[in-house]
Amino acid sequence: MENNLPNRETILEQLNWRYAAKSYDAAKKVSDEDWETLENALVLAPSSFGIQPYKFIVVTDREMKEKLKPAAWGQAQITDSSHLVVVTYKKTLTDADIEHFVDRIVEVRGVPRETLNDYENIMKDSAKKAVEGNYIETWNSRQAYIALGFLLETAALMKIDATPIEGFDAAQFDEILGLDDYSAVVLCAVGYRQAETDWLAPLPKVRFPKEELIQRI
Amino acid sequence: MENNLPNRETILEQLNWRYAAKSYDAAKKVSDEDWETLENALVLAPSSFGIQPYKFIVVTDREMKEKLKPAAWGQAQITDSSHLVVVTYKKTLTDADIEHFVDRIVEVRGVPRETLNDYENIMKDSAKKAVEGNYIETWNSRQAYIALGFLLETAALMKIDATPIEGFDAAQFDEILGLDDYSAVVLCAVGYRQAETDWLAPLPKVRFPKEELIQRI
Repeated sequence: MENNLPNRETILEQLNWRYAAKSYDAAKKVSDEDWETLENALVLAPSSFGIQPYKFIVVTDREMKEKLKPAAWGQAQITDSSHLVVVTYKKTLTDADIEHFVDRIVEVRGVPRETLNDYENIMKDSAKKAVEGNYIETWNSRQAYIALGFLLETAALMKIDATPIEGFDAAQFDEILGLDDYSAVVLCAVGYRQAETDWLAPLPKVRFPKEELIQRI
Repeated sequence: MENNLPNRETILEQLNWRYAAKSYDAAKKVSDEDWETLENALVLAPSSFGIQPYKFIVVTDREMKEKLKPAAWGQAQITDSSHLVVVTYKKTLTDADIEHFVDRIVEVRGVPRETLNDYENIMKDSAKKAVEGNYIETWNSRQAYIALGFLLETAALMKIDATPIEGFDAAQFDEILGLDDYSAVVLCAVGYRQAETDWLAPLPKVRFPKEELIQRI
């Protein structure tokens, strides 16, 4: 293993260190440099076909946080965390979306567009089936959870707290944020724990034993 | 930042280094020690309420891989990777599942069971609503994708390749693996890339620009 890669123990220590902080220190903000890294991790997360059928709304504005809070059952993390990430997924996938993605491939890889025709058709076909089969929202929203995983793990590696939150009213969030093609699916509060005031902080992490979760064949 | 934590550049370098390898070196196996770390990352991934409504089936058996391969459109990663992880989610959540989880909290935290009565009822109520509202599979399968994110990122940090695969027939996988309460939702091939034979290896990673994915408020 190369010198600058984290060792196994460090990774697991940080994944053990992390927990879903319930109390944040409102005075401690994530630095711009750290935040940049977390955003880059979100961008680098993989998705089906690479289509990235999601958007992340990063809320630091106090007023907007206060507006969102009641739609998340008044949870203190909404306002006390440094950055609130509203993870949203695209509610559909149109031919235009696929074409936009193909444009991006052409742009990044500098390949002639025609060479991607087959791939484009496969993607359009998959998207069409998912829309018609009524599982496009399931499909797209799952991809967003990979990115959530990247955000949580990257934060933990940087010793930054992050709390995933599913307890909120998505319809209200969509309305407040003016979302139309996208819908909020999960939140992630990011910042620094205030351990003294967090009932969860001193409690050991609960996970099922490995033998229950993993089967080897 | 503490001395042994990876620096920001290393994390992003590794997330840039990773890609969905299409060709694996069948002769290179992930060491037991490394594999143990990846399994621990899966176990440590957070989930809604901490219920971990999933199981990971780790296939290294050649014969089983060959059996599964046709149900994944013959993709070479199935057999050539070192470890194939079949990520499965629980198709329902019963009162018994919640009680089993509460038992585990009691075991790990050593708290009197009665103190968890309210929490238990909240969880049972949420599960019941999700089952009746027909979104329990959506809910549980999303949690599994957080764990997938942890697997992908942890592997990248250890310079181990990992390819998420959604192109497979879940019903056939469930049958071959004898799954009943759980269903396969996504695969992840893990091992070492064979860059010389992988058309995707030399191509630059395609991601949308940050400005398109992230909105700041």
